[in-house]
Order: sequence, then C-alpha cells, then structure tokens
Amino acid sequence: MYNQRNEQLCAKFEEAGIDALLVTTLPNIMYLSGFTGSTAMVLITPTKRWFLTDFRYHTQVAQQVDKSFELVDNTGKNLIKVVLPSLPGSESLQRIGFESTNVSYDMWGLLSSAENHEFVSTKGLVEDLREIKSEAEIELLRAAVLLNEVVWQEVVGTLGADTTEADLVAEIEYRARKRGASGTSFDPIVASGANSSKPHARFTQERIVPGTPLTFDMGMLLGGYCSDMTRTVFFRDCPEKWANIYNIVKLAKDSANDAVMPGKLGKEIDAVARQVIIDAGYGDKFGHGLGHGVGLEVHEGPRLAQVANMQLRVGNVLTNEPGIYLPGEGGIRIEDMFVVRADGPENLNTLSTDLLVVG
Amino acid sequence: MYNQRNEQLCAKFEEAGIDALLVTTLPNIMYLSGFTGSTAMVLITPTKRWFLTDFRYHTQVAQQVDKSFELVDNTGKNLIKVVLPSLPGSESLQRIGFESTNVSYDMWGLLSSAENHEFVSTKGLVEDLREIKSEAEIELLRAAVLLNEVVWQEVVGTLGADTTEADLVAEIEYRARKRGASGTSFDPIVASGANSSKPHARFTQERIVPGTPLTFDMGMLLGGYCSDMTRTVFFRDCPEKWANIYNIVKLAKDSANDAVMPGKLGKEIDAVARQVIIDAGYGDKFGHGLGHGVGLEVHEGPRLAQVANMQLRVGNVLTNEPGIYLPGEGGIRIEDMFVVRADGPENLNTLSTDLLVVG
Repeated sequence: MYNQRNEQLCAKFEEAGIDALLVTTLPNIMYLSGFTGSTAMVLITPTKRWFLTDFRYHTQVAQQVDKSFELVDNTGKNLIKVVLPSLPGSESLQRIGFESTNVSYDMWGLLSSAENHEFVSTKGLVEDLREIKSEAEIELLRAAVLLNEVVWQEVVGTLGADTTEADLVAEIEYRARKRGASGTSFDPIVASGANSSKPHARFTQERIVPGTPLTFDMGMLLGGYCSDMTRTVFFRDCPEKWANIYNIVKLAKDSANDAVMPGKLGKEIDAVARQVIIDAGYGDKFGHGLGHGVGLEVHEGPRLAQVANMQLRVGNVLTNEPGIYLPGEGGIRIEDMFVVRADGPENLNTLSTDLLVVG
Repeated sequence: MYNQRNEQLCAKFEEAGIDALLVTTLPNIMYLSGFTGSTAMVLITPTKRWFLTDFRYHTQVAQQVDKSFELVDNTGKNLIKVVLPSLPGSESLQRIGFESTNVSYDMWGLLSSAENHEFVSTKGLVEDLREIKSEAEIELLRAAVLLNEVVWQEVVGTLGADTTEADLVAEIEYRARKRGASGTSFDPIVASGANSSKPHARFTQERIVPGTPLTFDMGMLLGGYCSDMTRTVFFRDCPEKWANIYNIVKLAKDSANDAVMPGKLGKEIDAVARQVIIDAGYGDKFGHGLGHGVGLEVHEGPRLAQVANMQLRVGNVLTNEPGIYLPGEGGIRIEDMFVVRADGPENLNTLSTDLLVVG
C-alpha cells in the first residue's frame, strides 16, 4: 500500500520538474509512511525513501513506519548543512520539491540556503493522491461515520432539563474514547439557542434552551481517518418557523446530493443547494461552502463551494452540509458524508435527517 | 489590558523597522484582542487596529474582541489587492511586519505581490511579550494547574485491574469538561509498561501493567491558559530498579528547581538536571530538553534546553520535566510548572512528587 502510494507520487515528479520531494505536512507523511507522530519529515526519491525525525520518535518509527523508509536521526541537526549531505546519493538530487502551503517563511530561508540543491515550490502533490480514496480507506471512513452515529445517538439520549452544552461535549468525547476512537476529529460543536447561529460555535456552560435549534457538529478519529456529521435537533419543542427552515435546509442537502456525479464541478453542487436556500429567501444566511473532502484530515480536498472549479472524481469522499443562520436567534445545519461513485453518490451516513424533537 | 499589550507591541516597531504588524499567529491574536476563534488576522498600527476575519466569525468578534479593534470582513477577498487598500490610512504604511515563523511560503508570495507596501520579516515580537506573565495571567495559570491536579487525582482513583490506557484518557477528558475546563491543553499521554519509554507516547487499548511505570502527562485549558503536569506512578508494585530511577529523576528536577533565578540561562538550568542524570549513568536516556514556557500555548518560550541561551526573566512561567527512558522497558518523567520570581522559583503545583504506588 505504501509502496504504491509512493510510486504514484514519484510518477508526478517529472511533470513537477523535481528529482525528489521533501514532505513536511504531517497527514501527507502519515499517508506515505504510516507515521502518526507530530514531528517528522520525509524525503522521497524514485529509488530511496528517508524518514527524518528526532530522538523522541525513534521507537514509534520502528513500530509504525513502512520498512521501505530508512530512519535518519535529525535531533538538533541542520537539515541543509548536516542531514542532507549525510544521505548517500543525495548529492545527485538537483531539484528538490517542497510543500509550499506548509513550509514557513523561515523554513524557506533554510531551504534556500542550500548550495548544491535547488528547492522548488510544489503544491498538492500528495494531497491530490489523497483525494481519491481506496476501498480500504472508504471502509475506514465508513467505520468512523458509524461510530460517530452511535456516539451521537447515545449522547442525545443523555439530554435532560439540566444538561449544558459543555455536558454534551464531555459525553461525546468520553463515549468516543470508550468505544475505541483515537479521539474526536475536531472539537465537538454543541450549540443551543442563539449560540447555534454561529457555524463554528464554541460550547458554553449554559443549559440547552427548549424550543430552539440544538446543533451537534462532531466527528470521530478512527484508524487515522475522520468522520464529520451535523444534526440539528429540537429539545422538547420545535416552533413552526424553525420547522420550515429545517425543511429548507434538508431540501437543499437532498437536492445537492441528487446532483452528485463524477465530472461535476464542486461549484455546481454547491449551487444546487444554494439555489434552494436563495429561493426560500435565506440566500444571505448561508455564508459558507456546501462541503469539503474528508480523509486523514477532517478538512481536505476537494471542496463544494462557490469558488470550487475542480471536477468531482470517483473515490472522493465529501461532506454535504448546507445551513441557514439567523444571527442572535439560531441556526440549522445538516451534514452527511458521501462517496463519489461512478453512478452517483453513496451516502456513508445511515441515520435519518428528518426533523427530530427530543426530550 | 489589551490596550497596554498593543502599546507595548507598537513600542517595538521602531527597532524592528516597521510601521505596522500583520499578526497571523492565533495565540498572538488572542493575546492582543481576546479572540479565540480559528481564522483571523489583525493589522496593528500605533494609531489603528484592524481585525480581519470572514463571515463565520463576525458574531464571535462582536462578543470577544476588544473594542479598540475595527472589524473588517475579508470573506473571499484578496488581502493585498482588496482588503488592504480598503483600510483608511493604510497607504501610509510603507513597511509592514509579518510573522516569519507562521507565514507560509504561499502567504509570503501573496504579501510580496504588494506594490505599495514592503513586507518585512519579524520574529517573536508578540511572543516575547507573552513570555512575561502578569499577575492576572499567573492566577489563570495557577487555576489551570490546580484543576489539572484535581482531575489527575480523580482519574488515578479510577484505576483497576481492567483499566486500559484509553480508559484513563477518557476519564481525564470527561472530568476536565465536567469540572469546567474548556478542554485539555494537549492530547493526554497515558503510557504504561514499555509504552512509557516513549516521551510522547500515544495511548493504547492495553491494560495497565502492574510493576511498570505508568506515566500521565496532561494539561487543562482554562480561561485560555494551559497547564502541563507529568506524574509517573506504579500500579500495585514498584521494583527497586524503577524506584532508584524515579529518585534520580526527582533529584534532577529538585536540583534544577533550586537553581532557578532571574538572569540564569535556560541551558544552565537544563545542565543542572542533566548533570544529576549523567552522574547516575543515564545521560544518554534523557533525550529532550528540561522544560518550556507555558501560557496561551502549552509550548512557548522561554526554553530550558541544552541550546537555550536566553536569560530567565521575572514573570516567566515554565515546566521542569526531566526524564529517563529505557527503550522497550519503560520511562520515568516528573513535571511541574513554576513562575520565575525575583527571589527564585514559585512552584504552581501543589501535589507531592514522591514515589507513589497505587491500586
């Protein structure tokens, strides 16, 4: 698996005009090598793969990293002056690509100090491979989605009159760990009342407000892969105004889902959902994109957004998450994950998106 | 408070050769403005402060950000071509500093496309201010330390024959939330047996192994500030070999603590602990630095390490965390946080570091 990924990567070197790629983005390192630690870089060439990290991670490298990589200790060593010259054959690597999104201005300063190598800006070489999920990856994503649904259902079951947003966040994290998740794929969003009008709300110590939207936006991390799901429910009562808005959001989501096919542009799918919301008079209340890719990262490519010009490809896994937000009042968002298949979308979620009143 | 911090920052502009600073590092933005969201940048000048963020965070800005900042919507707008020219008076900002550690190569490409401004690399202007904690900040750190101790004590109390590392991580997070933490300041490390030999171990689903080191390295996030504490305990039994190593680590920590005074170099404090470990024959088993600053970030300046040439200053808050790691067998680390006071260290932790056998 790792061999294949690295070979696919090296097949892009000629077009990118590079002899090697210095990979510094952690999810890319994980994708290429299996490493889940937080400090490393890898240097990939068509004939040799080096794994550079410090003292703290050597044991973990021995356990996790694909055997096609050679471990190089770089504890406190200058990459350009010491580490690179120590790698046999590296002197022949004239043009070494680096990841321009990830490399800092300071790191660029270090790279450009090299006298025997030219460092060349590249973008998205590994990320592009990661956008097409294998069937094995899709099964891991499916498992992360299923776990997310199980945990969410359990957590909703704990809701009572005294429950706070913070309580529900605590329950999500605890039940995630207890059921075997490596963790949550992002800090869970639990937002009730006016707080739900913020798409990226931070939970509070306030009790859940009956008769207002209660938004859960949460994800599990399982086997390295992420899930991401949003459900907006109502505690005890759903006023008609919110029920109407809920059904607009649901229609927007379902319509976008129906439009998914390989070859469609991300902005075309976004436009389908957005038009439903515009037609209902809430166009200015849906200020974010419709969705994003999910994999080793909870936000990755491709995107479903007004500016997304890329075509959907078979094997993409994305979210579909329209929303309507009324500042100071509340907001509704519904989110599922789907795979782009040759004949259309396959929804990875299994739970209903029908309006749910709980408690 | 925010006024004072911004004025202290602007007082450094002349020496840095800049008319304004574009701040893109999130903890720095929080320090200067109060904002806790995840997407923003601020432009600070001696006479005007602008807060740039997109649609999703406008409500949060209204609630959190200091009123001395003017909100500027930058949703989908090019910073150089659209946003900057729209700011009244910005045409007079000839040299604008940027944070070179944080700005990516791509962002640098955008900044250097400006025709009417010169963007100037700066490093650590805000971080340097953050290293000196006010008494109010120290009280927040003290509260985060106390909460950490309370949660740790509770969690140790749950330890039983069937408890796994993952169970203990779940308990830490759950009890943190339930007691009012915004979260943990990093993913808790709970490592038993050979897993404890990795300084940055990842928890497993394995049961705690009696008679081996059980390391907890954990921190709370409270009021924006972090804590960080490590305790290594023994479940049921502590073999003499490990008791000896434990007491070496404890002596190293206590000796380093006694050496803390304003004006001492970070490497001098590190050397005191390291010498104790070297003298005991474990010099090559302590591969990381002795400590680091803690504040809005769990790892910030200054450092206690072999290469740390900076002097300790009154108001620094740091960790003191020596360790000895035997690959494949286990490891011991003990960590407290302290404040550098005019007359020496003040330990923020209150719990004993004596060898503890539990269960």
